[in-house]
Amino acid sequence: MKKKKIACIGVGNLGRAWAAIFARAGHDVALYDNAAGAVDAALPAIESSLAAMAEAGLVDNVEAAMGRIRASATLADALQGVDHVQESVIEDVEVKHALFRTLDREAPPGAIIASSVSSIPPSEFMANLEGGGRCIVAHPVNPPHLIPVIEVMLGPSTSEETFEACCAFLRGIGQVPVRLNKEIFGYVLNRLQFALIHEALHLVDGGYISAEDIDNVVKYGLGRRWAFMGPFETNHLNATGGITEYYDKFQSAIGGIIAELHREPHPLNPELISRLAEEMESATPVAEVPARQEWRDRQLMALTRHFGDMRPRQE
Amino acid sequence: MKKKKIACIGVGNLGRAWAAIFARAGHDVALYDNAAGAVDAALPAIESSLAAMAEAGLVDNVEAAMGRIRASATLADALQGVDHVQESVIEDVEVKHALFRTLDREAPPGAIIASSVSSIPPSEFMANLEGGGRCIVAHPVNPPHLIPVIEVMLGPSTSEETFEACCAFLRGIGQVPVRLNKEIFGYVLNRLQFALIHEALHLVDGGYISAEDIDNVVKYGLGRRWAFMGPFETNHLNATGGITEYYDKFQSAIGGIIAELHREPHPLNPELISRLAEEMESATPVAEVPARQEWRDRQLMALTRHFGDMRPRQE
Repeated sequence: MKKKKIACIGVGNLGRAWAAIFARAGHDVALYDNAAGAVDAALPAIESSLAAMAEAGLVDNVEAAMGRIRASATLADALQGVDHVQESVIEDVEVKHALFRTLDREAPPGAIIASSVSSIPPSEFMANLEGGGRCIVAHPVNPPHLIPVIEVMLGPSTSEETFEACCAFLRGIGQVPVRLNKEIFGYVLNRLQFALIHEALHLVDGGYISAEDIDNVVKYGLGRRWAFMGPFETNHLNATGGITEYYDKFQSAIGGIIAELHREPHPLNPELISRLAEEMESATPVAEVPARQEWRDRQLMALTRHFGDMRPRQE
Repeated sequence: MKKKKIACIGVGNLGRAWAAIFARAGHDVALYDNAAGAVDAALPAIESSLAAMAEAGLVDNVEAAMGRIRASATLADALQGVDHVQESVIEDVEVKHALFRTLDREAPPGAIIASSVSSIPPSEFMANLEGGGRCIVAHPVNPPHLIPVIEVMLGPSTSEETFEACCAFLRGIGQVPVRLNKEIFGYVLNRLQFALIHEALHLVDGGYISAEDIDNVVKYGLGRRWAFMGPFETNHLNATGGITEYYDKFQSAIGGIIAELHREPHPLNPELISRLAEEMESATPVAEVPARQEWRDRQLMALTRHFGDMRPRQE
């Protein structure tokens, strides 16, 4: 692996997670944030996330990884000689628009400029840039150091070269880039997530099933398969003739279920949310959420080890 | 654990899987099928599925488990002294209706009569039975010996006692029963599955993303979390204030995505199915589907070991 120079611009939760995965993979990382003290606050957080990964066997040497991360006092310093810029500043179209103009002007020619943006369409801040071809969206899933997928969405003038190079780079650091060909609200992961949750909300609201049992259906059912196969491969392996036979054989059953799904957007009414909260809190009271989040992260690390992935070559 | 006597009526794929999990858990199982030769064909299939589980460390002693399974030449023989009847005959309302009348008349008082029915509403074959209170739906997910969840749906007159006893029994054999309070088309697991797939079909059809990348988003993203947390617990752990704070903070983002989900039932047009097939077959040609199914089952067994569940006490 060729060691690269990366700039992480914005070091909130996402920027910190990016820094950890870049450094874990052996790259040099410069951190910059225009909020005073932000970088100083980020460094120990990055170190403790690397330490947790080391404990789980996912990082070899925390000190060496931290040694590859440096604080930059200015944007110009952070951008010095970089190959990849990862922007993770606040979700504000004006801020991102101004920043992308600056980044495009100041980043070295050939550097890719990737945004972690989650809700603003890239056409609103990546358009009409001289270097629009090198600008792209690379949207991680929280927590990115434990969830491999990165939604790579093409901006208004992203070049194929940028897409290919960005994906090759992300694969090299142990992530799994997927290609979103054009702008779409909510990206794909959250659309799929809320398509399922939306139906679940209707089923709980209609008295068919409890929220706890929705969770059981997913974690002891669907999630067992989806942890290593996607939904279409699941279909493909559900008939000896593959997905063609599957959709042919079950066309009317599948069409029947699809026709029955709840369509009216659920109002997310406070009564329903209280009911969900009551059920969730009876298992994990709010005071215990932080401890349970640590449990979640340990579970994710254990699964990462189980599947043997997210293990870029180090040193 | 008290050793129970079980009758498996109908020994197609589902009946065989049930027999394997009942015998694995230490219970005595009688097999009956009114099709000539069906039981003889089932026995070696059950043995090889137990052998595969033994190889994965999920069964201690295949011979002992097979020793608990016997073939019955008549329904009356199979029902002799049983505690639990598991019906898994063909999806035909007339056949199930007639069979439930017979089972209710001939099964010992106190025995639970559970149906594996997947598409016929229980009210169409469980109504007006003298012992309607002991009749219930216990719908497994394929393959039931590797997927823990069982959808337990209350029939038109199922008693609470039957529900509780059936769930206790299922938990004792290592499965995870969930409660469906009333009849619902497609049950819950498949409704959730196809809610997600339905959105995925629209996204592929609209040119946003490939089918392969839909699979990647799920297996390297959503599925990592859903393998051990349900969707609502995932929400609950996404804010330090729990699910109430989560839905409060992200109300407009979530509502926005829900409002944007594709609502019109997808026509499942042949062009789209061909496209899915082309992508799926480029990774796994139809001729290799059986080998990949074995890979899937090995993956499921490895996950079962990873999570340390589906391991009822044996012997």
